Amino acid sequence: MYTQVLVVRNDLKMGKGKIAAQCSHASIAAFLKSQERKWGNEYEEWLNEGMQKIVCKVDTEKELLQLFEQVKNKFPTALITDAGHTQIAPNTKTCIGIGPANENELKKYTGHLKLL
Amino acid sequence: MYTQVLVVRNDLKMGKGKIAAQCSHASIAAFLKSQERKWGNEYEEWLNEGMQKIVCKVDTEKELLQLFEQVKNKFPTALITDAGHTQIAPNTKTCIGIGPANENELKKYTGHLKLL
Repeated sequence: MYTQVLVVRNDLKMGKGKIAAQCSHASIAAFLKSQERKWGNEYEEWLNEGMQKIVCKVDTEKELLQLFEQVKNKFPTALITDAGHTQIAPNTKTCIGIGPANENELKKYTGHLKLL
Repeated sequence: MYTQVLVVRNDLKMGKGKIAAQCSHASIAAFLKSQERKWGNEYEEWLNEGMQKIVCKVDTEKELLQLFEQVKNKFPTALITDAGHTQIAPNTKTCIGIGPANENELKKYTGHLKLL
């Protein structure tokens, strides 16, 4: 199984529409990265399987950035910075998208996170 | 400007993580459709502009399906049906993704919708 994990900062108190938009940014950005040759054809498997996504949360920017550093060279990963037109300050880091990638490999880094 | 509109059923009372996952499904599915030759290269413009997304709501399945019928041949569009593993019944239609497409054209069909 292949999966994509979207990790959102819960401390920003974004509304559900804002969260949905930020996660969609992260999902597409990580998906585009996964199409780079070095990641093989895992993204095709993921599409064929129904593009499973898991949405998790962290409570601080620090946690988000630490996770990003841990995974950024191991999986196709995208860190999303919000332009800040609505709800939150410009250049706020809101979420990351990780994968699609092998579910078991990804869980080594994200399995401890709580679901949003 | 190009935009993508994600339209979610608000009557399902999905949690914010569930909404984020469903919108991400819709976003990627509509994006993949937009890469079909008949839609030209608007998706590239949208990526270059920062892939603007707007998340809106409807209150019934009927509204969702009516909108889908209106737009499905005019824009790259994806209707998302949930497998129902969590929170909601299997085969529930949860949301649609429309575009990327020209913002002004898309607004003719979605401009009346309330933001989620």
